[in-house]
Amino acid sequence: MPVTLIGSLVNGRPNFMTVAFISRVCLDPPLVSTGLNKRSATREAVLKNRVFSVNFPTAAMVKEADYCGLVSANNTDKSMLFEVFYGKSPAAPMIQRCPLCLECTVLETHDFNSHSCIIAEITAAHVDECCLTGRKPDPKKINPLLLTIPDNRYWALGESVGYAWSAGKELMKGK
Amino acid sequence: MPVTLIGSLVNGRPNFMTVAFISRVCLDPPLVSTGLNKRSATREAVLKNRVFSVNFPTAAMVKEADYCGLVSANNTDKSMLFEVFYGKSPAAPMIQRCPLCLECTVLETHDFNSHSCIIAEITAAHVDECCLTGRKPDPKKINPLLLTIPDNRYWALGESVGYAWSAGKELMKGK
Repeated sequence: MPVTLIGSLVNGRPNFMTVAFISRVCLDPPLVSTGLNKRSATREAVLKNRVFSVNFPTAAMVKEADYCGLVSANNTDKSMLFEVFYGKSPAAPMIQRCPLCLECTVLETHDFNSHSCIIAEITAAHVDECCLTGRKPDPKKINPLLLTIPDNRYWALGESVGYAWSAGKELMKGK
Repeated sequence: MPVTLIGSLVNGRPNFMTVAFISRVCLDPPLVSTGLNKRSATREAVLKNRVFSVNFPTAAMVKEADYCGLVSANNTDKSMLFEVFYGKSPAAPMIQRCPLCLECTVLETHDFNSHSCIIAEITAAHVDECCLTGRKPDPKKINPLLLTIPDNRYWALGESVGYAWSAGKELMKGK
């Protein structure tokens, strides 16, 4: 799973919660789906403000990324942890140190026992210029942080092993 | 994104489509959310049968995994590509070579322009014994295949960089 920090505004302050239950689910429109713990301050803020940010910390930010999952905005002010910047909304603070940040608007909410599944549209994307190769974000430069459960380990991205919509073409021959 | 092969039954035959728009979204019950292209045979089969499998290919299976995204069951029979096995349902074929396979039951479907977002419950999980460390699946042994877009590269998992709910503890001191 990719590790992200969900940015929201809690009690008028920027707040970030570690979230790995997240993925794209639609190309057009560009949608993400994420599961937010129902007891989290972030879920409450996202449902109230209808906007949030998705920030991708680097593998070098593992301590800060983990910390944001250990403490809740309900009892700890995390607003001073990162230098923040804003896009379209004051309720979607983004993290300057994160090489890739998305702004999202809530479309749908589906409640389950422990989590709410939020489907949201990506309305803007911010990438550090130094993490581009040509005009595209380069994952090797972004150096994303990954998580596996239940062994609860963080990982860096490894080596490239091929190209999509290409590596399998040789199996098409003779079919 | 994790690369998975979604297993379904199309025209009475096992079929597998490459899907990277997928993640957990809820802990209790254990739910996944996935975006399936509306033109795909897999989406049609999943909505009809209400069950499917999620198979995690290894980085060494990159050609086969990519091939399943290049060709559609609408014009190519992919049923002979893998040795399959079954769990609770004949409509959720699983891949013997994949070290981790999940059986899922559809709970909700939400249609968007290009994709349908399917929220499904994991009803069973199958892991190769040789990929366990103790009683837990070991990502380093599973050797999962990852994908990034729009650079369209496949990746292997890199090195472990810390433990979750632990690495950030030192930032809690003095707070």
